[in-house]
Amino acid sequence: MNVPKSVETTPFRSREQRLAEREQKREAVLQAAVRAFNARGFHAASLDEVATSLQISKPTIYHYLGNKEQVLLECVARGLEQLQGAADAALQEDGNGLDRLRSFLTRYAEINMADFGRCVIRTGEEMLSPDGAKRFRAFKREIDQSLRRLIEAGIADGSIGPVDVKITSFTLAGALNWPGRWYEPGGPMTAGAIAEKMVALLIDGIRA
Amino acid sequence: MNVPKSVETTPFRSREQRLAEREQKREAVLQAAVRAFNARGFHAASLDEVATSLQISKPTIYHYLGNKEQVLLECVARGLEQLQGAADAALQEDGNGLDRLRSFLTRYAEINMADFGRCVIRTGEEMLSPDGAKRFRAFKREIDQSLRRLIEAGIADGSIGPVDVKITSFTLAGALNWPGRWYEPGGPMTAGAIAEKMVALLIDGIRA
Repeated sequence: MNVPKSVETTPFRSREQRLAEREQKREAVLQAAVRAFNARGFHAASLDEVATSLQISKPTIYHYLGNKEQVLLECVARGLEQLQGAADAALQEDGNGLDRLRSFLTRYAEINMADFGRCVIRTGEEMLSPDGAKRFRAFKREIDQSLRRLIEAGIADGSIGPVDVKITSFTLAGALNWPGRWYEPGGPMTAGAIAEKMVALLIDGIRA
Repeated sequence: MNVPKSVETTPFRSREQRLAEREQKREAVLQAAVRAFNARGFHAASLDEVATSLQISKPTIYHYLGNKEQVLLECVARGLEQLQGAADAALQEDGNGLDRLRSFLTRYAEINMADFGRCVIRTGEEMLSPDGAKRFRAFKREIDQSLRRLIEAGIADGSIGPVDVKITSFTLAGALNWPGRWYEPGGPMTAGAIAEKMVALLIDGIRA
């Protein structure tokens, strides 16, 4: 009678293993690409260097993520998903509107100092195809809408002053987007500490 | 006896007229270039389209301003000079430290929504040669130093709270740089009105 080989010892990977491995490889390509884009800028960075850094060929990158613009769009989408996730989490939190807004803004700033957030900030619409630019804009608009809802909730419960919601959302987002341009990991302050200080300043102002 | 033709009727222009005309032409090229860079991005914009818009040839642009990177550097230098001029003017003004800072920040935001300021904001170091990037960075550092002096003076005279000067300068500049990315002339609010609202928010915070 033939006894089937146990699953543990077959040299063939299961469907789950193959999917997990594929995901792991895709992730490694994405990480290497976002670092190259952040370090040298999208135009100067090349998929050749990304491929070399992973000891793979450029067609392997095409296989996992597509061409250079598609790779950039994946990086940007990842950063925008993180920002949207932070907004969704803050909207569910306890506390008054100002507490929830503070929580979102702090996370928002931290993400903008991390790999994918920095890539979002450094990507201009002019780097994307018209279709890519449209998706990018729509995603950013959603995050702006969440920010406005958080501000409105704080005004409604009296924890935030009677501010102009649109101007306030642009001002807060602008202040906390900017670290995505100047922040370099490894400085004397952590991203978390910078984020907290910045958010405190925006909440309380600078007047004595 | 030969009577010399009066200066007013000679077909030859005086040295002053020639210099003024040269300056006027150089200015027209600079204005057309900054608008092309802002509209399409530095990489996508071409000196060909700038030349066509002025009904001149590309070598004429080279003659007045140099190659594409040199044209960009001239645009950026103009924007940075405007920002530095606003800082110098504010440092001379009457009023307490907070008043002078408010005056500078409002002007700073307005410049960032105008042609040359927008170009400063939209120019990444990776678009410039190493030498150009170095000059760009040094000029921006000077403006940051002026901003820090204004904040320090306000802390010293008690009109500004005991804030972290470095983080505050980054936060204020970041918030007011951002309109250089999103502002498009012709909207319902003027740049001046946007600048005033943003600065008021940064000074007083959003807490009720």
